[in-house]
Amino acid sequence: MANSIADFNEFRQDLNEEILGCGHLGVKRFFALDHQAYEPGGLDTKTKELLGLVASMVLRCDDCITYHVIRCGAVGWKRAEVIDAFNVALIVGGSITIPHVRRAFARMREIPALAPREKK
Amino acid sequence: MANSIADFNEFRQDLNEEILGCGHLGVKRFFALDHQAYEPGGLDTKTKELLGLVASMVLRCDDCITYHVIRCGAVGWKRAEVIDAFNVALIVGGSITIPHVRRAFARMREIPALAPREKK
Amino acid sequence: MANSIADFNEFRQDLNEEILGCGHLGVKRFFALDHQAYEPGGLDTKTKELLGLVASMVLRCDDCITYHVIRCGAVGWKRAEVIDAFNVALIVGGSITIPHVRRAFARMREIPALAPREKK
Amino acid sequence: MANSIADFNEFRQDLNEEILGCGHLGVKRFFALDHQAYEPGGLDTKTKELLGLVASMVLRCDDCITYHVIRCGAVGWKRAEVIDAFNVALIVGGSITIPHVRRAFARMREIPALAPREKK
Amino acid sequence: MANSIADFNEFRQDLNEEILGCGHLGVKRFFALDHQAYEPGGLDTKTKELLGLVASMVLRCDDCITYHVIRCGAVGWKRAEVIDAFNVALIVGGSITIPHVRRAFARMREIPALAPREKK
Amino acid sequence: MANSIADFNEFRQDLNEEILGCGHLGVKRFFALDHQAYEPGGLDTKTKELLGLVASMVLRCDDCITYHVIRCGAVGWKRAEVIDAFNVALIVGGSITIPHVRRAFARMREIPALAPREKK
Repeated sequence: MANSIADFNEFRQDLNEEILGCGHLGVKRFFALDHQAYEPGGLDTKTKELLGLVASMVLRCDDCITYHVIRCGAVGWKRAEVIDAFNVALIVGGSITIPHVRRAFARMREIPALAPREKK
Repeated sequence: MANSIADFNEFRQDLNEEILGCGHLGVKRFFALDHQAYEPGGLDTKTKELLGLVASMVLRCDDCITYHVIRCGAVGWKRAEVIDAFNVALIVGGSITIPHVRRAFARMREIPALAPREKK
Repeated sequence: MANSIADFNEFRQDLNEEILGCGHLGVKRFFALDHQAYEPGGLDTKTKELLGLVASMVLRCDDCITYHVIRCGAVGWKRAEVIDAFNVALIVGGSITIPHVRRAFARMREIPALAPREKK
Repeated sequence: MANSIADFNEFRQDLNEEILGCGHLGVKRFFALDHQAYEPGGLDTKTKELLGLVASMVLRCDDCITYHVIRCGAVGWKRAEVIDAFNVALIVGGSITIPHVRRAFARMREIPALAPREKK
Repeated sequence: MANSIADFNEFRQDLNEEILGCGHLGVKRFFALDHQAYEPGGLDTKTKELLGLVASMVLRCDDCITYHVIRCGAVGWKRAEVIDAFNVALIVGGSITIPHVRRAFARMREIPALAPREKK
Repeated sequence: MANSIADFNEFRQDLNEEILGCGHLGVKRFFALDHQAYEPGGLDTKTKELLGLVASMVLRCDDCITYHVIRCGAVGWKRAEVIDAFNVALIVGGSITIPHVRRAFARMREIPALAPREKK
């Protein structure tokens, strides 16, 4: 896992640029489709970001969790709501998800909207 | 996959009774915790059922999908909303989820609130 | 698993039509992108179908395996080549893939180009 | 899932013969290595069969679970011990394993050494 | 992966405290249930820790493996026994587990009861 | 993920030696079988390395991806071909594979045969 959200974002942006510029149309279209999946449709963006977060948690992908935790904070989810979503993921995915829940809590410390009241 | 929702429910109820009556306290507590995870908390039940559905889809468990599709219909999600949630799962989980999406669409035919207008 | 390739194809076509006609543009685009991923590009279709088969095997999706086994026969892979691809999947994915390898061998009995010489 | 242990065994034996006779040395060697992994070594066979069962449960493979449940009964594990192993798998793997736990309980009904006292 | 068991334990304890103190009853109960799953029941703690280790290995979670390797050493499993359990996981889970087996061997170097005789 | 291919190779070689020297015959045989799976058979080594790469990508194992990317470069696959294989993996495995695709692109920067023309 990246040391900080800043490091995560830097690596992500650097490589995304290389991938999108590599000349493969299918990859480029998939990245666009991935982006569009969270735009308002049958569901609003806020709901979809929470769906993306829970999907990332049960599939146990730290980078995906980091990305969606940031997004969930940005679209207005509160700490208690995100934690309740983590609980659904924890029950569905089991104790094997616990290390990812820990790292997600660590990430939330870096996000003002989701950080605990008294930062540890 | 069970032939119908009725068959699914019958097998599920029969075995759940045997499991809950088998005398293992840990298993019984986990089943209770699983039930409680979808009760109102930081998030309402409606949102949580959709989270459970998407988690089940990316983890590719047909029985779990059947259960949560039924629940999503019961708590008021509309067909277009459920399909938009499937799209998030499809993008996160990839084409390997397509057979499960197909079976989920087949299940929705059995659920009046989620069935297509003109049944094919 | 469907009883036969005919049953598999019938269910697949029936539901694909419903999914593609359900009005969700994102889902429709993903299905198109999935189709295009196996068209000639950096690699030819024949190679890509084998990649799709091995990916389906290690991810343990019987319907995906059935689909790609049929496709592999159609694009010219021979029985010994497909079996050698299964071996890579078996070593990468472990004994948990064995039931899927068994069902893939059962499917090959239905495909003339991939069936064993003396059918058992 | 096969309708009965008898059906499971028949399909398994039929296909295993075809696979072992297909002429691929690597596949044949892997099947042998898989068999040997449960023979006495650092651990005894009884312990290893339980490890195989829990691994199959968290990886959610019904056929593998059926095979190892049969084996666990054969090597002397009692119903309460197998259920306690299921509980570990359930906690590690989460509610997504519940449908597999249900089917494992259904399978135990067919195995005298593991069946419930009073069949429900 | 954490650089050392000491680092792993420090991060784990720090975040577990935050999670258990976050006010979500469901999460707290799941953590308790996870702890209880390894207490004596149908099976003894020693057997259950080995089950937890193999489950963690086939699900490929380094933190979970680290935790259970430490526990296995603490409850009295010997190096040759743990390695034999790894072999079951390796055969069930395939070569995709090899990087985790490597990291598990590296972790055993830090645990006197499980370290190789002559440390490399 | 290791900081560089040199670090990856050093750790891999160090631990592989310890594992192969640990005295467990089953583990040793599995490592041999894993090696043999990529030797010429029904398919040539070049094709099999690409199968191994795609299998590693959809199973989301960074170390396995690093290993097979190195091997793919060594056996003669070109950058555009490897990227086209990544696209198959991305479509099959979904957006959850994107962080691994990013790290695979970062790894290719270290491999002359697969690096972008103008290194970023």
